[in-house]
Amino acid sequence: MEKLSPLQIERLKYQPKLPSSLAEGINGLEMVEGSATQSVRDQEQIQELFKNTYGKPVVTFKHSTMSKEAGVRNVGVILSGGQAPGGHNVIAGLYDALKQANSANKLYGFLGGPSGIIDGKYVEFDDKFIDAYRNTGGFDIIGSGRTKLETEEQFEKSLAVCKKLNISAVVIIGGDDSNTNAALLAEWFVKHNAGIQVIGCPKTIDGDLKNDQIEISFGFDTATKTYAELIGNIERDANSAKKYWHFVKIMGRSASHVALEAALQTQPNITLISEEVEEKKMSLESIINYMCDIIVKRADMGKNFGIAVIPEGLIEFIPEMKSMIANLNDIMASLENDSAFVNATTIRDKFDIVENRLEDNNAKVYASLPVLIKGQLLADRDPHGNVQVSKIETEKLLIEMISTRLEELKSQGEFIGKFNAQSHFFGYEGRCAFPSNFDADYCYSLGFNAFALISFGLTGYLSSVRNLTAPASEWVAGGIPLTMMMNMEKRHGEMKPVIQKALVKLDGPVFKQLEDNREDWAMNDRYLFPGAIQYFGPSCVCDVTTCTLQLERAKQLVNA
Amino acid sequence: MEKLSPLQIERLKYQPKLPSSLAEGINGLEMVEGSATQSVRDQEQIQELFKNTYGKPVVTFKHSTMSKEAGVRNVGVILSGGQAPGGHNVIAGLYDALKQANSANKLYGFLGGPSGIIDGKYVEFDDKFIDAYRNTGGFDIIGSGRTKLETEEQFEKSLAVCKKLNISAVVIIGGDDSNTNAALLAEWFVKHNAGIQVIGCPKTIDGDLKNDQIEISFGFDTATKTYAELIGNIERDANSAKKYWHFVKIMGRSASHVALEAALQTQPNITLISEEVEEKKMSLESIINYMCDIIVKRADMGKNFGIAVIPEGLIEFIPEMKSMIANLNDIMASLENDSAFVNATTIRDKFDIVENRLEDNNAKVYASLPVLIKGQLLADRDPHGNVQVSKIETEKLLIEMISTRLEELKSQGEFIGKFNAQSHFFGYEGRCAFPSNFDADYCYSLGFNAFALISFGLTGYLSSVRNLTAPASEWVAGGIPLTMMMNMEKRHGEMKPVIQKALVKLDGPVFKQLEDNREDWAMNDRYLFPGAIQYFGPSCVCDVTTCTLQLERAKQLVNA
Repeated sequence: MEKLSPLQIERLKYQPKLPSSLAEGINGLEMVEGSATQSVRDQEQIQELFKNTYGKPVVTFKHSTMSKEAGVRNVGVILSGGQAPGGHNVIAGLYDALKQANSANKLYGFLGGPSGIIDGKYVEFDDKFIDAYRNTGGFDIIGSGRTKLETEEQFEKSLAVCKKLNISAVVIIGGDDSNTNAALLAEWFVKHNAGIQVIGCPKTIDGDLKNDQIEISFGFDTATKTYAELIGNIERDANSAKKYWHFVKIMGRSASHVALEAALQTQPNITLISEEVEEKKMSLESIINYMCDIIVKRADMGKNFGIAVIPEGLIEFIPEMKSMIANLNDIMASLENDSAFVNATTIRDKFDIVENRLEDNNAKVYASLPVLIKGQLLADRDPHGNVQVSKIETEKLLIEMISTRLEELKSQGEFIGKFNAQSHFFGYEGRCAFPSNFDADYCYSLGFNAFALISFGLTGYLSSVRNLTAPASEWVAGGIPLTMMMNMEKRHGEMKPVIQKALVKLDGPVFKQLEDNREDWAMNDRYLFPGAIQYFGPSCVCDVTTCTLQLERAKQLVNA
Repeated sequence: MEKLSPLQIERLKYQPKLPSSLAEGINGLEMVEGSATQSVRDQEQIQELFKNTYGKPVVTFKHSTMSKEAGVRNVGVILSGGQAPGGHNVIAGLYDALKQANSANKLYGFLGGPSGIIDGKYVEFDDKFIDAYRNTGGFDIIGSGRTKLETEEQFEKSLAVCKKLNISAVVIIGGDDSNTNAALLAEWFVKHNAGIQVIGCPKTIDGDLKNDQIEISFGFDTATKTYAELIGNIERDANSAKKYWHFVKIMGRSASHVALEAALQTQPNITLISEEVEEKKMSLESIINYMCDIIVKRADMGKNFGIAVIPEGLIEFIPEMKSMIANLNDIMASLENDSAFVNATTIRDKFDIVENRLEDNNAKVYASLPVLIKGQLLADRDPHGNVQVSKIETEKLLIEMISTRLEELKSQGEFIGKFNAQSHFFGYEGRCAFPSNFDADYCYSLGFNAFALISFGLTGYLSSVRNLTAPASEWVAGGIPLTMMMNMEKRHGEMKPVIQKALVKLDGPVFKQLEDNREDWAMNDRYLFPGAIQYFGPSCVCDVTTCTLQLERAKQLVNA
């Protein structure tokens, strides 16, 4: 028999909570329809592209006294993109609802992400299979993948596979891009009278798939709590040893929600937010100066230690870096066949060649960077020949530039302390943690609810569970038309219909919480130690969700 | 009021468990003396150096029906060296016992480590002060430091400070070195009729302060569980995404207990153990080949992912690297004033100069290293001019050398897979976690017990709590003479009396557990997911200690 850890064994027994509307049974539901909807922007274009699925109403479910009889349905499910804690519970919830509706129903899992439905690679779930994955982290139940489901050919292949398995509904668990593709697939299936429904589920630890209808994507709760655990532990270490500045880079390429949430949970001395850097057009130098100012002032108080939290995507939000990287992407292609560059004997010769080719301002920016980073910018390019920004060690870039600046200040008598730094990057540590009780419950509800949407014949909807800061029994289950969240955006030079990505709002209540406190946190040590995620203890420890969700919900409720 | 996290609030309420002998009250104890003891080796020399404190018996405590009255005592406590979870509970246990014995007793905490007792920097604890730190991680209650308490002048200053505060006993919470110094201080106080006792407490996450008398040092349990949580999460991620090899370096410079324990808890594909590398005189090349072999075989099975766990101190245990670094330390001093080296325009020129100076074999080893590591070996030297081995990114060294080797194998048609790697280093994340229930109980008992040793007038003893795999009520409290654990070792060219450091025993049950399973774990994915440390749940999750302690105790009990 497979060996399991004690926590694995105990978590398998956990029964996730459902909204009371769903808890009474899948066959005893009544659907309440709202009025017709519009997309957030570009209504005409979106309607034109989604002739069959545009404008549908928001729906909610309530318990009905009439129980209906359910026919037999086969459903397929896909995990798409990066892992997020709770994905297994979405599938478990979907499975339980489907089997509760009619024990003859079948659930198929497509293997390795969207490519599974295209290539017809799948498994059929049964009780034993599902039971081994309840309340566990990871996407290993069927694997995930990053294939984009968007071409006519892919749709046709998917249709053939579904027909073969007699599948009449597909559930796609993914982020904004995957759900955009779910909307396209839904529209295509209707247009081709395929008789196959498509339902999405909002997944991403990044927390950037949210809007007026979706309070939060799943996984954000668990991942941010895991990062906050580690940052809190490091804060305590820094405050005990009193000799290191810890620079902690946190996963999240485009939005800084994760860094912001982790910061609210731990109250570090410095938090950088990419959206603020972009909005205020901050230069690398001004960021260095901001950080040095805090380091110098703390040193004046005798405190040669601290914590800085840095979002992974930072450098792409610094206007001058963005410009330099774009310029670099262009010239690197031309340098591929440049014999002087290819045959350069030292890396410094390569730096010089690159500097000479870059436009003036960009060359200046490039020249100002530490050797390590200059090298990383030239190394490892992605398949499109672009700089792999995720491989740039931004935390080390900042440490090195700050060190240099502090040495200057020291020689001018303006810095009297010491600066020893440690760098950290947290990302993979949090994407597959055991889901928190919140994520376990939320995901199970999302999956269960997805089948409710299927059973009412809907397509092109996102499974929606709202009122999430209330106890689970009071959560509101329903569905949001995917087109309602869409607008037109330029992608690879073409205007495309996409679900709007939610960036950190500088006038929102979450960023405001940081803004109102960061001066205090910078100088005085207000470190909070969240500790490890707890699954069994007092509800005040185990069932509380993120600061982000609480602050945003509080504001929504005030405005409502 | 200070803001606390929900877990902080709840953990402050936790009442740590005590051995039943101590739980009945500090004034109702009877001390049972064993027979006279010997040091582990070099008995004559150790006895000569510890004339007054050598040869004392092991003692244990049991509950007595007679309660005695206690006089008034002032005690001082010191935290020494790196943080370990539970240090605050040692102080809380000590405080509670001391106040229970006589409410007029006072406990002083020396600030910032051993320098606090030398410089007379201290605080006096009261209930409110102690209550804010119960069951929390970190050493921030009074701070820690690395000053070595070993010179005559330091002892004299310490004596003066103790006299001023009317302190008659000092408790030193530290690792092997700090406890060696505790033994020297105890001897010195007796020799000078100071009337001041010294008691040590076994602290270190490294797990290398253990022997026939000490089952484990505190902090090892919590730190290894924290690292295992993260490794397990990463394993789940690797097994979901199936596209990365994760190389995880784990804190622990000299012994590999931490890496070994973390590996037993998570069952990764590859685990390197420094002691094995040294014992088998493995070269860097043979380590690379061992790892490549597993990577290639897994790729043959279609698995281009995996996890490798690497102890922080690895490179110092590779004989050829050790030799090269020693040689490098020597020549770097001479290069400090070498104008060709100092004025070299490129780093490669520096590499060449170094290579020319190194002895042949060492030059070959140096030349074989990746540029990044060559640079790290020349950069940042410690105050003694030596390579700072902790700054060498061993995980990246291995990744780069393995990449190169795999490219060769690929060109020979012997590797058909892909190798994409991510590196991680876990250390600071675990040293200040909230102590597990085990460490919370163990530390509180060690501190409480330290006062019992004081109340019976002992000095030069290590606080000892044994039988640790049984429920806490059955733990055996007592004291071990520090000299019993000592032998003579060469330090900085001089023979010194020191407490033996415990390295991983290749013929011990813990390493054997790895050895018996690693071939299976390499190819088949036996990943275990321990998850976050739990404080409130079922006892099978919350109160289980490490594999290391369980395996070693089981063997001890069989042999007993």
